[in-house]
Amino acid sequence: MVSVKPLKFEDDELLLLDQRKLPGKEEYFTCKTYQDVHFAIKEMVCRGAPLIGAVGAYGVALACREFINESQEKFQQETKRAISELSSARPTAVNLFWALNKMNKLLGQVMEENTAPEDIYPIILNEAHKISDQELQRNYRIAEFGDQVISNGDKILTHCNTGALATTGYGTALGVIRQAHYNHKDIFVYVDETRPRLQGAKLTAWELKQEQLPFALIPDSSAAVLIKNGDIDVIFVGADRIASNGDTANKIGTFMLSILAKKYKVPFYVVAPVSTIDFQAKNGDDITIEERSSKEVTEIDGVRVAPTDIQVYNPAFDITPAENITGIITEKGIIGPNNREIMTIQE
Amino acid sequence: MVSVKPLKFEDDELLLLDQRKLPGKEEYFTCKTYQDVHFAIKEMVCRGAPLIGAVGAYGVALACREFINESQEKFQQETKRAISELSSARPTAVNLFWALNKMNKLLGQVMEENTAPEDIYPIILNEAHKISDQELQRNYRIAEFGDQVISNGDKILTHCNTGALATTGYGTALGVIRQAHYNHKDIFVYVDETRPRLQGAKLTAWELKQEQLPFALIPDSSAAVLIKNGDIDVIFVGADRIASNGDTANKIGTFMLSILAKKYKVPFYVVAPVSTIDFQAKNGDDITIEERSSKEVTEIDGVRVAPTDIQVYNPAFDITPAENITGIITEKGIIGPNNREIMTIQE
Repeated sequence: MVSVKPLKFEDDELLLLDQRKLPGKEEYFTCKTYQDVHFAIKEMVCRGAPLIGAVGAYGVALACREFINESQEKFQQETKRAISELSSARPTAVNLFWALNKMNKLLGQVMEENTAPEDIYPIILNEAHKISDQELQRNYRIAEFGDQVISNGDKILTHCNTGALATTGYGTALGVIRQAHYNHKDIFVYVDETRPRLQGAKLTAWELKQEQLPFALIPDSSAAVLIKNGDIDVIFVGADRIASNGDTANKIGTFMLSILAKKYKVPFYVVAPVSTIDFQAKNGDDITIEERSSKEVTEIDGVRVAPTDIQVYNPAFDITPAENITGIITEKGIIGPNNREIMTIQE
Repeated sequence: MVSVKPLKFEDDELLLLDQRKLPGKEEYFTCKTYQDVHFAIKEMVCRGAPLIGAVGAYGVALACREFINESQEKFQQETKRAISELSSARPTAVNLFWALNKMNKLLGQVMEENTAPEDIYPIILNEAHKISDQELQRNYRIAEFGDQVISNGDKILTHCNTGALATTGYGTALGVIRQAHYNHKDIFVYVDETRPRLQGAKLTAWELKQEQLPFALIPDSSAAVLIKNGDIDVIFVGADRIASNGDTANKIGTFMLSILAKKYKVPFYVVAPVSTIDFQAKNGDDITIEERSSKEVTEIDGVRVAPTDIQVYNPAFDITPAENITGIITEKGIIGPNNREIMTIQE
């Protein structure tokens, strides 16, 4: 059983496990307003494409609650503004837009029916709960499909954090690995520390330690040595956005792994719910890559590790071309990274 | 002019710029005994293959001074022990063994001539000065050869620190880059931060900032994106040991870069003095790779970034196969990474 709870909704407040403080401290960050949610996504209190989708949905619910006593007109204005602001929190993961879009549509429907704001809030909140719960159910299905490609004795490489902390409680790539472990397969996981934010070191290592799943933490550039030496049987990574041709935006470093995987013929799987697929994006060129603050590179937990006032190039994601991907593991099955197969699973 | 002084010898003491404290503090670490030198190499007060060669030589001089008042027999015993202990400080860089071997031979010669210990010390110290100075002269020649492959406008990628701080005052790979800058070529340097010890962020960025040479610091895994996008014209890296077939041991992450360079046809140069070549090593398999403490990965400057009590895989170096290397830039010219050309420059 997974004990990690990345989010809770209690007494009209969204509580997010503050991932900036892990593994040192387990503290919840309280969101009372949609602005708090915007901050939490932008500053990576929570992160992971599927999780920020669900959190964004709760942000809309909090906006509804915030303006519950306003006129219908003002309510509509403010919730619209909230959705627009929430969608600006981070640009790459499509799940956020997917969830906000879903909320926006529902909001439009109930507004059209002239529902009073006080009755809208529970409807919208219920939808957020549903998105969060469905995300979890999807994770279980993804994990069942993914587990099929893991053999007993496999040594597995993963990047960043795609576990309970990146989703609403189970995981995508790490969910697959978790499932194999629950199914008593004897596996060993190599975890890329994942610079600059060290999600591998801070989050994935923390989750795996809790699961007592055998693993070793490695600097990102050591992965190449393990792959070349035949020490990796299969690689699982998550995705922040998948274009309709299979090109995949994921945490910086994924592309590099995919090149090595292809060269040394190691199966390389992208694991993500269908909501991660951007059916409008023709290929990787259509995906906006977020560039983040230089401080993520020059400071680590407030400790300066580089000279001051220097230029830094810090893209948060990179694009892995479809040709380097073995398959995409979704809740609808494992599909080939090509437009034909991807279009068959469009909802 | 290079203002950085990685080592000084004053009043029978070796002063090493403490590289563990850069870029925050410029402090010298004092070595009064060969044991201090052993500590300084092992704990990476100083690092960089050419520099630890010279520092090892000074360690032998300090041992001679330490036992200057002993009988010839005791003196011989103790200096032998010192050389053996110094050679155990770090296993990969061959320059250390090369320098200690040189000192050992000279010591044997003067002992055979029945020279008194008090007369031996200045001879041995002089040899250490010579090794240090010759290293610097070699750097200048290497830089002149290397500069020839840099064109005006080049965007250059480098890894780890191979500058004044890795040598006795100028640099190998970074010396080449420095030379192009001194020759008024308009260049831009991308610096891999180089996990786990962050020599790129802490040392190379510090040196380049002092030179006012335009650069950007990047997380190691971003290099792949730059290379793929055609943003890198040429790559220069150092070496800790080069086998006689051209296989090269260098800082972890070098191998990964070499794979990308080959795939995207970016020239990839190893820059090192001839003393880095291990003519006895047939290929990369003959090179011992040092595995360093897990703390280098789980803690950054004393700040814990991963859960406690976890397994870590932390090789300090990796092997770049000769086939991925465009050329080896030495003080005797640029040679092809193959046994035939390498054997022509054996001293």
